[in-house]
Order: sequence, then C-alpha cells, then structure tokens
Amino acid sequence: MKKVNNIAVLTSGGDAPGMNAAVRAVVRTGIYHQLNVFGVMYGYRGMLKNEIFPLESKSVANIIQRGGTILKTARCKEFYEAEGRRKAYENLKKHNIDGIVVIGGDGSFNGAYKMSQEFDIPCIGIPGTIDKDIAGSDFTIGFDTAVNTAVEAIDKIRDTADAHDRLFIIEVMGRDAGYIALHSGISTGAEHIMTPEHLIDIKDIIEDLQTNERRRKLVNIIVVAEGSIAGGAEEVARQVKASCPQLDTRVCILGHIQRGGSPTCQDRILASRMGYAAVEALLEGTNNVMVGIVNNKIQYTPLEQAIKAKEHLDPEWLKIVKILAS
Amino acid sequence: MKKVNNIAVLTSGGDAPGMNAAVRAVVRTGIYHQLNVFGVMYGYRGMLKNEIFPLESKSVANIIQRGGTILKTARCKEFYEAEGRRKAYENLKKHNIDGIVVIGGDGSFNGAYKMSQEFDIPCIGIPGTIDKDIAGSDFTIGFDTAVNTAVEAIDKIRDTADAHDRLFIIEVMGRDAGYIALHSGISTGAEHIMTPEHLIDIKDIIEDLQTNERRRKLVNIIVVAEGSIAGGAEEVARQVKASCPQLDTRVCILGHIQRGGSPTCQDRILASRMGYAAVEALLEGTNNVMVGIVNNKIQYTPLEQAIKAKEHLDPEWLKIVKILAS
Amino acid sequence: MKKVNNIAVLTSGGDAPGMNAAVRAVVRTGIYHQLNVFGVMYGYRGMLKNEIFPLESKSVANIIQRGGTILKTARCKEFYEAEGRRKAYENLKKHNIDGIVVIGGDGSFNGAYKMSQEFDIPCIGIPGTIDKDIAGSDFTIGFDTAVNTAVEAIDKIRDTADAHDRLFIIEVMGRDAGYIALHSGISTGAEHIMTPEHLIDIKDIIEDLQTNERRRKLVNIIVVAEGSIAGGAEEVARQVKASCPQLDTRVCILGHIQRGGSPTCQDRILASRMGYAAVEALLEGTNNVMVGIVNNKIQYTPLEQAIKAKEHLDPEWLKIVKILAS
Amino acid sequence: MKKVNNIAVLTSGGDAPGMNAAVRAVVRTGIYHQLNVFGVMYGYRGMLKNEIFPLESKSVANIIQRGGTILKTARCKEFYEAEGRRKAYENLKKHNIDGIVVIGGDGSFNGAYKMSQEFDIPCIGIPGTIDKDIAGSDFTIGFDTAVNTAVEAIDKIRDTADAHDRLFIIEVMGRDAGYIALHSGISTGAEHIMTPEHLIDIKDIIEDLQTNERRRKLVNIIVVAEGSIAGGAEEVARQVKASCPQLDTRVCILGHIQRGGSPTCQDRILASRMGYAAVEALLEGTNNVMVGIVNNKIQYTPLEQAIKAKEHLDPEWLKIVKILAS
Repeated sequence: MKKVNNIAVLTSGGDAPGMNAAVRAVVRTGIYHQLNVFGVMYGYRGMLKNEIFPLESKSVANIIQRGGTILKTARCKEFYEAEGRRKAYENLKKHNIDGIVVIGGDGSFNGAYKMSQEFDIPCIGIPGTIDKDIAGSDFTIGFDTAVNTAVEAIDKIRDTADAHDRLFIIEVMGRDAGYIALHSGISTGAEHIMTPEHLIDIKDIIEDLQTNERRRKLVNIIVVAEGSIAGGAEEVARQVKASCPQLDTRVCILGHIQRGGSPTCQDRILASRMGYAAVEALLEGTNNVMVGIVNNKIQYTPLEQAIKAKEHLDPEWLKIVKILAS
Repeated sequence: MKKVNNIAVLTSGGDAPGMNAAVRAVVRTGIYHQLNVFGVMYGYRGMLKNEIFPLESKSVANIIQRGGTILKTARCKEFYEAEGRRKAYENLKKHNIDGIVVIGGDGSFNGAYKMSQEFDIPCIGIPGTIDKDIAGSDFTIGFDTAVNTAVEAIDKIRDTADAHDRLFIIEVMGRDAGYIALHSGISTGAEHIMTPEHLIDIKDIIEDLQTNERRRKLVNIIVVAEGSIAGGAEEVARQVKASCPQLDTRVCILGHIQRGGSPTCQDRILASRMGYAAVEALLEGTNNVMVGIVNNKIQYTPLEQAIKAKEHLDPEWLKIVKILAS
Repeated sequence: MKKVNNIAVLTSGGDAPGMNAAVRAVVRTGIYHQLNVFGVMYGYRGMLKNEIFPLESKSVANIIQRGGTILKTARCKEFYEAEGRRKAYENLKKHNIDGIVVIGGDGSFNGAYKMSQEFDIPCIGIPGTIDKDIAGSDFTIGFDTAVNTAVEAIDKIRDTADAHDRLFIIEVMGRDAGYIALHSGISTGAEHIMTPEHLIDIKDIIEDLQTNERRRKLVNIIVVAEGSIAGGAEEVARQVKASCPQLDTRVCILGHIQRGGSPTCQDRILASRMGYAAVEALLEGTNNVMVGIVNNKIQYTPLEQAIKAKEHLDPEWLKIVKILAS
Repeated sequence: MKKVNNIAVLTSGGDAPGMNAAVRAVVRTGIYHQLNVFGVMYGYRGMLKNEIFPLESKSVANIIQRGGTILKTARCKEFYEAEGRRKAYENLKKHNIDGIVVIGGDGSFNGAYKMSQEFDIPCIGIPGTIDKDIAGSDFTIGFDTAVNTAVEAIDKIRDTADAHDRLFIIEVMGRDAGYIALHSGISTGAEHIMTPEHLIDIKDIIEDLQTNERRRKLVNIIVVAEGSIAGGAEEVARQVKASCPQLDTRVCILGHIQRGGSPTCQDRILASRMGYAAVEALLEGTNNVMVGIVNNKIQYTPLEQAIKAKEHLDPEWLKIVKILAS
C-alpha cells in the first residue's frame, strides 16, 4: 500500500448544504494524520486552471453551519475530454498531490473514476447532492436540509391556501428522482405528489380534485417534482385549470432556496462522518470508491457503480399519502 | 354617543401574517368591555351569506403565533353593489351587530366606508396587508413578516449564487409598492433593486452588470418587485440575458411563501395594538376610521382617506443600496 | 383473529414534536379502515377520568406541523396501581374500545404492557420521546426536531462566543442518554461532549482546555447532557472555573425549548409511518408490540422489551469529535 | 471643517446581531468617499494593543447576515483610565486615523466621549445593544433580532406548556430595561410580564395565578426580565411555588441565544442606515455624536447625552397585556 502524503479536496456539480461540513472534516482528519491538505477551487475547472491552495485547520473554522461551499463549484466541459483530465493531473502533480476527495454527484464521480483509471491517483467520492439518488448510499449530503426547506415553505403556503380555500400546485426540485417531492409532500399533508417515477396519473388526480370539490374540500396541495412525468407545476396547473375551472388554482415554484441555507443536524453529521471516512479510506488504500451510508453504517461502493439510482419508489408510500391526506 | 353592544370582526382581501393576532385582540378587548363579539367568515362574502358566529375568549386562544386567518378571507364582487351591501347589513342586524372591525387593505376599507355611509353602522379599519402601502399608517400588519421571509429566502439563494458565481434575479411581492423589494434588497446586500416606483432604469442596471463583469465581480443579486416598471423577474432576465449572454443568470420567484408563516414580534405587537385600539375607538364613538401607527403612536384616519399611498420612495435609499453593495 | 372496531389513541409522558403527526396518522388510517377512533385526553389520567372523545378526519386537520399534542399529556400515578388500570379499562369498555395506540416513552409502554396482560385489550406502542433511547427503534419521534433546535441555539451562542473569545458550557436534554448531546455537539463543532455514558473524564477536558489556552484558542463550546456523569452544566462550570480561572466561562441551559416547535420533515414522516403501521398492526392482530424503525424498515418489538436502551455510544464518535474540533 | 482621511471602526461592549451590517456600512461608505478605513479588533482593548488593520470592500463581503462581530469585542478596564486612552490615541495616530466610529452601548459611548474631549479625534457612536435603552434612539441594533429569538423560543415552550398544563416562568435578557420582556411577552400572549421598571407587584401576580387556578386555567406564561424588581426567574419561581404549590411550575432561562443569530431585516436596515449616517456625519464635521433613529429619521445626539434611557414603560401596555391574555 502506497503511503498518501498530500491530498486535495474539491466540491463539484450543483452545490448542496453540508458540503462545507464535509470539506471541514476532510481537512481536519487529513491534518490529524499529518497530511498536507489542498483545496481546489471551482471543482474540476480549478484543477485545470491550477487554482489549488493549501488549507489549514483554521481555514475551515466556523463553516460547519454555512450553506454553499467555500471551495465554490462549477461545471467543466473540458474535463470530459482525456486532454482536460491530463492537464488537471499535471496540475495536481505540481503540488505532489497523491489523493483526491471529490464531493459531488454522479457526474462528478464519473470524472473521478476516469481520472483514477487514466492516472495513478486514488480518488474518493462523497455524495453531495440534494436529490438523494445515488446508488450506494441511503442518504446524500444536502437532502435533509433541502426537504426541510421545502417543508417550511409549503407550511407557509398552506397558511394562505387555508385562508383562501385555494389549490396550490408547488414545484420542488428533483429532475430524475422524486424523493424531495415525496418527503416534503407527506410531511406537509399534501393531497397529491407527482414524481419522475410514474406513481400516479394526472387523470386520477384531476378526478380526485373533482370529487373533493363535490365534497366541498377546497384546500388542496399538490407537490410536483420538477421532473414529474406529467411535467412541472406550470404544465400540471394548465391541465388542472382546464378540467377544474372553478377551483382557485395557484402555482409556486420553490426553486433555488432549496439548495441553500444552514445545513440540518443530520446533514452536518452525515458530512462529518463521510469526510472523516474518505480520508481514512485513502490512508487504508481503499481507493476509487464512494463513501456511503447504508443502514447507518459507512459503506464503500466502487466509483463506477456510484451512479444515479434507478430504484422505484415504494408504491406503499402513495397509499399512505392518500390515506393520511383524506 | 350611541352605546355599542355587539360587534363583528372580519378579515378581508389578501391574507397577511398577524391577522390572527389582530382578531384575538379585537375579541378579547371586546369581551373585556362586556361586548358580544361575532366573527364573520370569508370577509364580506360571509356577511352576505350570514356566516356569522359568536366568538369567545378561548375561540382565539393559541392563535397569536399562527399565519393565515382563522376567519378565512375571500374576494366578494357582490359587495361592490349597493344591493349586496344591503343584504350584508340585514344579516348584521339579525345578530344586532352595531359595530364592525374590518382587517384588510384599501379595497376592504372602501367597502366599509360605503356601508358606513349607506347604513347606520360604524366601521373601523385595521390595515392588514403585506404591502405597507396604506396612507395613514407607517406600517401594516404582515409587512415585517413578509420581508423577513423574503430575506431568509434570499440569504439561501445567495449561498448558491456564491458557490456558482451566478446572477440571480429574484422576484418579491409588491404590485404597486416597492417596500418589500427595497427592504429585502438592502438587507441582503442586493446589487440592484427594481420597484414600481421608477427609481432606476434597466439600462443602467445592465450597464452596471457589464462593468461588474469586467471587474470580475460575478455574483449579483437583483431584487425585482412583481410590479416593477421594467416588468417582473422573467422579463428582466430576458433583457439581461440578451445583453449579458456570458453571465450565468437564474430567476427565482418567491411567490406565496411571503404571505404565510408565523408573524414576527413586530407584526404581533402591531396587530395587538391595532385590535385593541379599534375596539376602544368603537367604544369612544370614533367611527369610520382606520387605525394606523404613525411615529409609533396610534392615529386614526377617516376611512375614505385610507387608500393606497402614492408616496415616492426616498431616492437616497438607492444611493445607499449602490454604496453598500459596491 | 378478533376483529377490531373501535380504537383509542393517547399521548403519554413527556411531550415530543411529531406526536400530533402520529395522532393524525392513527386517526386517518383508522377511519380509512372504517374503525371508530377515540382520543383520550391527558394520557392514562384521561383514561381513568373517562376523558375520551370520538375523533373525525377533520379533528386532525392542520396539525401535522404543530408541536405539542392536541390530546395533551400528563403523568398518572394511579395507573401504576392495578386498581387504576381496572378503572381505566372499564372506561374504555364504556366506549366499546377494543384496541389502543399509546404514543410515549418506556414508562408509558410499561403501563400499556401491564394493561394488555391484565385485560383483554390489545395495545400498540409508538416511541414518542426526544431522547432516542428506546430499544427496538433506531429513531424516536421528536429526536430529530430536538437536536435541530439545540443546534440552532448553539449556533447562535457560538456567534457570541466568537465575538468575545468565551468558553460556553451548554446543557442539553438527556437524563439517561447522550444522543442529543452527541449529535448537537458534533454538528456545532463542539470541542467536548459530556454524556451519561462515561466517554470522557472531566479531568481530561480541563487538561485540554488548559492546553488550548496555551495555544491561544480561547473559544470553546462544551455540550453537556443534563444527566452527564460529571453533573449538569452548572457543576461542570464550577469545576472548570476552579481549574481555569482566567477563561471567560458562561453557562447556558437550553431547557424546554428542545421539546417544542414545529417537527422536522424526518419526525413528521417517522410519526406518519408509525401511526399508519400501528393501526395496520392492530388490524392484523399483531398486538402488544411497539412499532419501531430499524434500518429504515418498520419492525415490531414486544412491549415488554421496548425499554430504555442501555447501548453504549460508539467511542469512535469521541475520536471524530476530537479530530474535527481540533 | 477639518477634512477626514482615515477612519477606524470598532465594536465594543456586549455583541449584538447587526453589528456586522453596521461595520459593512461604515467600511463601504468610507471607501465610496475615498477614505482609508481601519478595523480595530476587540474594541478599545485592540486600540491599546494596536490591533488595527486596514479593511477593504471585500473584507466585509457576505457578513450582513452574520451574527456576532467580525471585529470581535471585549471589555477593557485600562481604557477607563486617562493613561489607557492616551496609549490608544497614540496607536491611532500611528495609522493617521482622524475619525472613529464606535458601535456599542452607553459605556462605550462614554469612553468615546472622554477620548474626544482629551484628544483631537472626532468620534461617532452607533447604538449596538439588544436592550434598546439608549437615550436618543427609538431602536438599537440587535433589539429586533433578540426579541424575535425570544419569541420563537417562548412559542416552543408554550407548545409544551399547553401539552402539560404547566406554568412556565421564562427569563429574558434586560438588566436595566424591560423592553425585551415587554415585547416578547405581549407577542407570545404571556399572562404576566415582570420588568426592572416597577409595573406590577409579584403579590398581584400570585393572586392572579390563584384566581386562574380556580377558573381552571392552568397554562400560564410569565416572562421575567433578568433585572426584574422581584428578581430573576429562579427567585420568582421560588415565591410562586411557595404560594401555589399545586401548580406544575417550571423555569426557563433563555440566556445567550438572545445575543446571536442572523439579524432580522429591521436590524440589518437599521445598522446599514446608521453606518452610512455615521460616516456622513464625520465627513460633514458633525462630531462627537451618536447616530440615532427617531420617528424613522436619522437624528444626532451629543455623545455625553447618549446614556441609558430612564424612561418609564407606558403603563397602558400592562393593561393591554392583561386584557389580551385573559
């Protein structure tokens, strides 16, 4: 097993609350093991541009509670090319970096995987994405914060929905996965939840709204994932209005507020554990894996398998939604 | 001076956080003075439909902290007609109601004013609207909560704007008045603020963005009132993208989250004072006025003058915005 | 298997955020299965006093987001006696109740267990306690909310600790278990965490504070569970001040704020799942068990085994705390 | 009028949320006017120890939303002596500083006043204290945030008070002034409010609790300022328990959470306006004054008059409290 001496940490892809807590854990665990730790700015783009700086313990003081990422993040097309990755690798070598921790989503892991294959540089992935859709981990950093932000927003909207007897169609994030919609919908008592996974047809929802109206239940919340099969909130509203013109229907798109904010306790702990475990893995020679949490235990998954999970949401959830909102 | 014995309270127009605190204050002050207090559901619509119920002290227990309104609210076209108001008056008489407190905006006061002219029934208005644009009061119930909700949301968006070096164009409420935009913009360090009052031209903003870009200041927040002269956030984004295609520009429309939520301390106190003062006014025979706060003192304004204030925002504010965001 | 027709739900022991969400789930799942559902006020005390009322679907509308419990709770000594339980049972029979769901902690389960042994009445327990210390469930309703409340409070205290270079000794709840202290301490970057489980000696902490002082690290947070081996925050402060008189040491006792507040997304979902599963269990004849969550799956534990868990906290946590706060 | 070229800003005394927003406004307004701006660390102590550093516009980026103070604060006995102030002045001269902005309370203004008398250095004060008790300003930076923090905490405690039918005696900050107690008490519907100003006798409160008990109103909240005439919450509880032993009485001391946290919109705007006005005052030669807000307009008060306000709280407030909580 080759000894690691100098490691780099970066955040990549969309930002997620808790990324700073993970950066802090990587830096301090590295320093505790007498490694030199470098921060790469703007993800892979900074690797290509050699925006690589040494980090000390105090560089990460007082950031565990901050949203965003002090290392910033960016998308980087050049890194998709072998030529780009070579340039990145050469910059790492200038700093004698012999281990990398990448905090990001499946696209970022794919990049790391390729680099680890092309060059002799071990990479560890940490799942940082609000979407909770990475195979190999029950949770991803940022999900718990994002759903709680969505829940607080929907609670507020329900106040005004109740005051006016309105139907609100609320769009939450989730292009490929319905977890944010499902969790925020259940916990705000939403009458319907629409996700990228085909769980319920919009025709059934419209029929139900018409039944509700006959029962004079006029307040309804529909939570729609942005990647819902039936389209986003605007499209769903268009169809609902066409079929239920007498309902007072409004649309809210929660948008980017779901990415920011101070991370919840769970996200901070998850990020701390994963950052710690990522460095431990590098030291033990367990390379080219993603650190995940499965049944509340750290588990490592080969980077090439740490892709978007294509699990089906358990349809029993929909039954629960229906029963509890009735 | 005619003695008042039975009063009714209603919430009307758009809901605003703190309306429940005002209802509570009206009910308990009325009961303290041995009045019978009735609640009218759904604003004037409930008056026409005779949805009028007696309220006790405990009917309003544990609501001071709740958003929305337990009395619900609605718009009511019929009440704009003399015939509708007659029907409403007759329903009030069935309950021997001889005084009304209306919590709402200028449209609601207009209705109250007309009824007070046509029939022998004193009306007191309480300004409940998040827009803070009523002549005769420095503050309106709900404004402080709405701006704080907007500020918390924009803080979150800034986290992600910073992480990605993005320009965010954020739309807040305010069809006719720029107060929410101004206050939330200043307190989140927004680079630009666009309001219904013509304070700055979009051309100047675009020019400034181009200068910033040359200075490599890539994170920018523009707060846009929905009724901004240049249009809402989508329209502003369209123009910005056309002129600054290299900026990574995103739009967020905060929407109805600004109407809900637990009221702030200031809104609860404002509502409590106004509810108390409204009943005191009825008892003292000071009728057909709106209760306002001017320089932190209760002040009464004739209902017919309690209209949307057409004040110009002080242009010094824009200078402060520019200096502080530089 | 005996068919269940009329069920009762109660909340017992200390209140916990999310209890209302569990009550809602029990009521609506029961009604969905065409059961009559009754609410018992004030826990077992209401059973003895026959404070038992029918609940409808709308009785639990708009409570999923509320802290506290609409059914109220109380401690009840009489129920510890066989005589008291007989009286309670007789009251249940007056309403033909043939199944009970008890939301509470281990003391409440013990009472339910005894009643289920003495009388022919199936009981299901749902773990509702902020302490997360019940054998048979990875989580208990209220824990996630309580730790997030503690984290937000400690974040605020750190602002002022940093401004003044102070040592804060902060007491969180947890008489028998250190989970709140451990989770809130890790996620606020506390330098030390003291729990009822003997993980670290106060002598080692004082030594470490003295080392920090020599290193001129003057800001420190120590999170102390109320049942810490070394005593509560006041006692810890007394010892610290005696040994480190030059430190500017302050004490904060977070207290009852940890029990209240709107439940987090996780607590609402946990409570919804458990409430649903409790009624399903009654219908399936799986009686006298507690509903738990183990590895994110519903699992049933015999009531007599659903006692305070005496697990040791994993000592690796302390290592992580030490490394990350360094 | 002497031209000012180099100014220094410091935060002094107890920290208050919004101090960072004020620092930011001073720095950016100064730079806009082409001044050199210096930050003094740890208040007057840093002046004596020459901990004085130049600040740029970006030094204060992204701090408007942060609690605490990036300049830190401390108490400094040496500065009370003429000798200490001389040393401080000499350090200022090393940096050619010819104007000072002090953000703090009356003690800090007193120091500034003395220095301005002894040496030729103009000083401007900005009232930064959560207590809102400075003559010459309707509001002080931090008050609005502190009361909202107290209100959120008391709302949470009421959840649990209601669940258990308990009496909670809650201590808020305010050694010499009752504003935090009064505002947080009114807006949480507290039954009684006890302040340093003698508004109500503890005997009357105990009598009222006994009456409530006969009426079977068992939930009560008493908000006590730490400097209440009758003593703090512990002492009040002792007397209440002695007279009402059957009540289930608990104590909560909110403590330092009231000093921290992200400032509210109002505190950020107040701080921004005051910081801006302080630099404008220096430039206009309006020296040795405190910047205040009176009736929502900037107003300057001579530093020697900017002392703790000894106003009596309007007794009508107590009448409102009594009526609204009944």
